[in-house]
Amino acid sequence: MADIDTKRRRGGGRAGNAARRGGAVIEQMPWRLPVNIDRPTEPLSADGVMAIHEGAMRILEEIGIVFLNPEALEIFKQAGCKVEGELVKMGRDWVMEMVRRAPAQFTITPRNPDRELIIGGNYMLFGNVSSPPNYWDMEIGRKVPGTREMCANLLKLTQYFNCIHFAGGYPVEPVDIHASVRHLDVLYDKLTLTDKAMHAYSLGKERVEDVMEMVKIAGGLTEEEFRAKPRMYTNINSTSPLKHDFPMIDGCLRLIRRGQAVVVTPFTLAGAMAPVTMAGAVAQSIAEALCAIALFQYVQPGCPCVIGTFTSNVDMKSGAPAFGTPEYMRATQMTGQLARFYGLPMRSSGVCAANVPDGQAMWETSNSLWAAVQSGSHVVYHAAGWLEGGLIASPEKFIMDCEVLQQIQRYMEPDTFATGPEDIAFDAIKEVGNSGHFFGIQHTQDRYTTAFYQPFLSDWKNFEGWEAAGAVWTPERAHHMFKEIIGSFEPPPMDPGIREELADFVARRKVEGGAPTDF
Amino acid sequence: MADIDTKRRRGGGRAGNAARRGGAVIEQMPWRLPVNIDRPTEPLSADGVMAIHEGAMRILEEIGIVFLNPEALEIFKQAGCKVEGELVKMGRDWVMEMVRRAPAQFTITPRNPDRELIIGGNYMLFGNVSSPPNYWDMEIGRKVPGTREMCANLLKLTQYFNCIHFAGGYPVEPVDIHASVRHLDVLYDKLTLTDKAMHAYSLGKERVEDVMEMVKIAGGLTEEEFRAKPRMYTNINSTSPLKHDFPMIDGCLRLIRRGQAVVVTPFTLAGAMAPVTMAGAVAQSIAEALCAIALFQYVQPGCPCVIGTFTSNVDMKSGAPAFGTPEYMRATQMTGQLARFYGLPMRSSGVCAANVPDGQAMWETSNSLWAAVQSGSHVVYHAAGWLEGGLIASPEKFIMDCEVLQQIQRYMEPDTFATGPEDIAFDAIKEVGNSGHFFGIQHTQDRYTTAFYQPFLSDWKNFEGWEAAGAVWTPERAHHMFKEIIGSFEPPPMDPGIREELADFVARRKVEGGAPTDF
Repeated sequence: MADIDTKRRRGGGRAGNAARRGGAVIEQMPWRLPVNIDRPTEPLSADGVMAIHEGAMRILEEIGIVFLNPEALEIFKQAGCKVEGELVKMGRDWVMEMVRRAPAQFTITPRNPDRELIIGGNYMLFGNVSSPPNYWDMEIGRKVPGTREMCANLLKLTQYFNCIHFAGGYPVEPVDIHASVRHLDVLYDKLTLTDKAMHAYSLGKERVEDVMEMVKIAGGLTEEEFRAKPRMYTNINSTSPLKHDFPMIDGCLRLIRRGQAVVVTPFTLAGAMAPVTMAGAVAQSIAEALCAIALFQYVQPGCPCVIGTFTSNVDMKSGAPAFGTPEYMRATQMTGQLARFYGLPMRSSGVCAANVPDGQAMWETSNSLWAAVQSGSHVVYHAAGWLEGGLIASPEKFIMDCEVLQQIQRYMEPDTFATGPEDIAFDAIKEVGNSGHFFGIQHTQDRYTTAFYQPFLSDWKNFEGWEAAGAVWTPERAHHMFKEIIGSFEPPPMDPGIREELADFVARRKVEGGAPTDF
Repeated sequence: MADIDTKRRRGGGRAGNAARRGGAVIEQMPWRLPVNIDRPTEPLSADGVMAIHEGAMRILEEIGIVFLNPEALEIFKQAGCKVEGELVKMGRDWVMEMVRRAPAQFTITPRNPDRELIIGGNYMLFGNVSSPPNYWDMEIGRKVPGTREMCANLLKLTQYFNCIHFAGGYPVEPVDIHASVRHLDVLYDKLTLTDKAMHAYSLGKERVEDVMEMVKIAGGLTEEEFRAKPRMYTNINSTSPLKHDFPMIDGCLRLIRRGQAVVVTPFTLAGAMAPVTMAGAVAQSIAEALCAIALFQYVQPGCPCVIGTFTSNVDMKSGAPAFGTPEYMRATQMTGQLARFYGLPMRSSGVCAANVPDGQAMWETSNSLWAAVQSGSHVVYHAAGWLEGGLIASPEKFIMDCEVLQQIQRYMEPDTFATGPEDIAFDAIKEVGNSGHFFGIQHTQDRYTTAFYQPFLSDWKNFEGWEAAGAVWTPERAHHMFKEIIGSFEPPPMDPGIREELADFVARRKVEGGAPTDF
């Protein structure tokens, strides 16, 4: 098999140098929307699901949620909820009636319609790491604040890898750009360097509205076309315990009123902002998410909403957050059961506590990603590039994670367990009989180029071959690959007129002062 | 929470140096037999299971299996199977009748009865890496042939870690001991350094009989007591495709006739010794395993047998074996479905193709270990210490794998998803309300020392803390831990008379020449 000239599909960009180097050529799986065909892992019995639901409903009815948003308070009053100052209590009948309005499945269509996403059903989609303030790579070798260039490089990876379906928040916070205009520069970079679905931070009116305008411009859309279906989304967190702040709710209201999608993801860290028991932390998370989703469904019936989970536990020694733990996995699976109970699409994450892209980083990330699969998550945030509990973005980790994501996507392909007559291969087994091997036979020749997953980063050489090739450990291989991808990156096509219009918009909004920086 | 003096359970040995060093103190979960409560992941429909079963039966009926063992051929003849030279064809009715005799669950009781294993049911047990000819650690920094000292050190890890339930084959092949007496020296080391369940290689009459004698001596057992229940086991492979060699079958026959357990694990590498299609490779594996198990059940009805899987795929580029791949995961899950169809306990493995304990090693190993969980495997071979497709044993990898194994064991504890009133924690949520945190409240104080998994190797410090502690990556942390464990290792108690008897046995058998080395 070794001497057969395998035809290689190239991913985006030119991999000429890589091909000439012989070893680490980047071969990718094609763009697709993976379908998760596994029955979810369900730790909870039906009674367990009801116990968490009952807990969430009692939280909403008896304790209530603080909304630091006057408009939301007014809407809750109109809806007949009990509003005491900023505290809102709502009955389960109303909450469930509202939640039932949410669609179980919807689409998000970015400027390149070939990148349209289906959120819900059995689809499982992955996005890049979002919002770390810091950056680490092997060349720099230490933790440094993010810059626009680092951010752009991570956006190039976001675009390059077919296993990444959408752009999350900023893959690293570019703190070299003033906060008032940061969203303008980064969105310009995001929209020109990628053609995948866009995210807006709900951090103030101007930021949300600017991003919506820029997405409209990039897509060449009229306001009517923009509103006709989701073109982008926001992701908000509650301020656990039991509080929603002003800008997050404000941003969501602005998006849903123009037909865009929202993801509501409480961050309930068991033992810190939520009970030390996982079921308690999940119940609180469900309550915090459902009250916001109910609000949005009251305002805009049928608007696309995703319920997110970010329930993990603290380190018992230090109180610091831990990620990819056994408890994290169970919380994610439990939330999946509740999301199905409510008929809502679900978001989880690819996460770790490790500080560098080593063995720990990969077992923690693997734990979280397999929990995403097992929970029936539809959207996986932070799926590539996350380190140090989300405080560091790393291009090496990004590429290592993409190798794992591709394997998960391959795992979901039904031909890995097909059992037709040609799969059982009785005739081939008979042909080879009790000695010899299957390398040369026709059944193998007909299939071997597509039969198995082909990694782009894993090194399957034996030790001697690996040593002869420089004895390069995984993160260093990923680092070389990072340099090559960036070096040969070609942005997706964009009409020059649209690019100019985007640039003009950014320039005009900068002159106007951008966004206030009081958030 | 940071300032509370947590009480730490110490694992075996003295961890004084580690404690004084502050960071990497070794805290272990206690010895237990973990129970896998997850419903298995089942890619196959009922029709798919039947298609693979049908394929396996047709292989046995129409193609046949070569047995290079005259005694086995004679037994098959007696049983009414069709024997043509060394080729045996057997009807499905007879095979299934024999397989039904095998117990769904049995025990293995080593010299320390507290280490008794239950094989089957929902129990999930883990053993050390077995049989690599080579060794790698960070101090040596290259691949070297195994020695008795390296083997003994890995046996100390096998004993030390509570998440390792049984001793597999030699954790590294000590090639500095002559092959004729190697089994005597290593079994002496195994029996004195560990008190966990023992394995014998089925590589010739003398080796098997010597190990059985030594296990008898170590347990202070009469022949009658030894035979009364399984005290040890062997693991055999077929010579794929469709062949069983002499010594493997011979060893199993010797063990089952004295009441001991056998594991039959074909090594069907899709595209090499088995069809390029995963269902075909699994069908062939099932056929190769069932024919041997049927033979053993004919000879010794009800003897304890485990069906093993070692189905993986080759690298399409080189033909080399790959491990922990998406296809490997599906093959393991499919074999789990078939094992349940046959009512047999199942073995799978913790495996990778990586050459060093880096990120790739951990995502490949995580893939294989989660596949073991998802498949409902009862016994997981090679669960700690495996590198380079089983050609290298590494103590750093051993310790890293144990961290993952502990997390899997914690994941299986039902309190991670308990939903009683105290778990839902409504009162605690009410107490904290819409601001503040859960650190200080009684509900947290009552539970935080046991609420969450506490890793012994993962570093959950933030980047600055990790950097201040030396910026040590995972394998180096594992290396330091290895040195400490070995430095402070205390072997399990053994009666001095028994130790002397073992030594005398070894000495006598060495004088007699040990075992022939023609295998």
